[in-house]
Amino acid sequence: MKLYYAETANCYKTCAVAQYLKSPVEFVRVNLGELEHKQPEFLAKNPNGKVPVLDTGNGYLWESVAIMCHLAREAKSDLWPNDERQVEVLRWISWDFDCFLPGAGVYYYENIIKPQFNIGKPNPDALAEAEPQFKQHAELLNTHLAGKDFVVGNSLSLADFSLAVMLPYSEQAKIPIDDFPEIQRWHNNLMQLPAWRSPFPTRDK
Amino acid sequence: MKLYYAETANCYKTCAVAQYLKSPVEFVRVNLGELEHKQPEFLAKNPNGKVPVLDTGNGYLWESVAIMCHLAREAKSDLWPNDERQVEVLRWISWDFDCFLPGAGVYYYENIIKPQFNIGKPNPDALAEAEPQFKQHAELLNTHLAGKDFVVGNSLSLADFSLAVMLPYSEQAKIPIDDFPEIQRWHNNLMQLPAWRSPFPTRDK
Ligand SMILES: N[C@@H](CCC(=O)N[C@@H](CS)C(=O)NCC(=O)O)C(=O)O
Ligand SMILES: N[C@@H](CCC(=O)N[C@@H](CS)C(=O)NCC(=O)O)C(=O)O
Repeated sequence: MKLYYAETANCYKTCAVAQYLKSPVEFVRVNLGELEHKQPEFLAKNPNGKVPVLDTGNGYLWESVAIMCHLAREAKSDLWPNDERQVEVLRWISWDFDCFLPGAGVYYYENIIKPQFNIGKPNPDALAEAEPQFKQHAELLNTHLAGKDFVVGNSLSLADFSLAVMLPYSEQAKIPIDDFPEIQRWHNNLMQLPAWRSPFPTRDK
Repeated sequence: MKLYYAETANCYKTCAVAQYLKSPVEFVRVNLGELEHKQPEFLAKNPNGKVPVLDTGNGYLWESVAIMCHLAREAKSDLWPNDERQVEVLRWISWDFDCFLPGAGVYYYENIIKPQFNIGKPNPDALAEAEPQFKQHAELLNTHLAGKDFVVGNSLSLADFSLAVMLPYSEQAKIPIDDFPEIQRWHNNLMQLPAWRSPFPTRDK
């Protein structure tokens, strides 16, 4: 299998899952700065022109959540549990998409992506608008995590990898997580995993 | 089980799945106009203050995709296949969230929700901005559906119910689907299902 990635958030969780599972994938870096993902060769793999993409050996799979699920299924891993916990993992992945990620993503986009790709200055209005939205959702997650080490049940799952995706960037993106000690504790635990701490292959590879 | 719903898009697909599977659920209507979903009694069921919510008999489940998955698992239905197709269903659900739904959702919000809940006039700028985004994604789906009756494999799945969610509203919401004959053909087939055509219990129930 080949995992096409760049050093961005959706690839972060996908690469982390591949590293955590020691999946037999070759990592192939896509140069977003040079718009490699908008060239015909890449669009043939993913017509959306986005990373990550997995060459499963049997076709091209896109959407980070589907790629993580495929890798977990191949490894017969409980990251994607094959019982009622599956529903809970889906609940939190869906909630992340709908609620948690959009708020946190504004900080990531304004404070990291814009400077990185030279597409303008952080917009203070967008950041001000995101703050109450982010805090409302962080409060819900913080309450859910009280007394828990993992988002679903007693073990690591794709829900943890999904919900945590902005947190490695929180300092640089200035995401206001100071008021949410349960989130911090949970994420500090995740950071103990080498796969989460450094999901990307070293650049000169 | 009890399914708390209102006549809105996320409830549409969830109620349709429950009707299609003949799930043993009692439908409980939540009056959004009277802000029933923001009252403490409802917030205890879903702290997000949103419908749908399923009382599984074993707790409250929210997020429409998780509810549909739970109902399908309970019914041991292939709507949520327990094999590699699961990954494909997830791919299309995720793509819907990220790409297809946001574009179509603008038409739904501007042309249906705003008038329905008296929250202002449709914003022509928002609609103009949504159009190329919607069309780009509709093109991808249209191409994918060529020669296919279902989004994944040869049978109905949660991917169909998810991706189709705006289409019953397309006329009223003025969603520009005229250029996408494969989408129309596929959705016309879905409309043959009584559960998709009329997912909601009749109002005087
Ligand atoms: N829903 C997709 C989103 C993928 C996505 O947005 N990827 C970004 C990087 S994190 C990208 O490729 N952006 C380039 C672009 O959209 O032009 C997923 O979960 O994989
Ligand atoms: N991600 C949620 C979204 C649910 C949602 O947005 N529900 C809408 C109706 S379709 C709602 O309850 N809106 C009321 C509100 O947000 O105040 C899901 O898939 O169930």
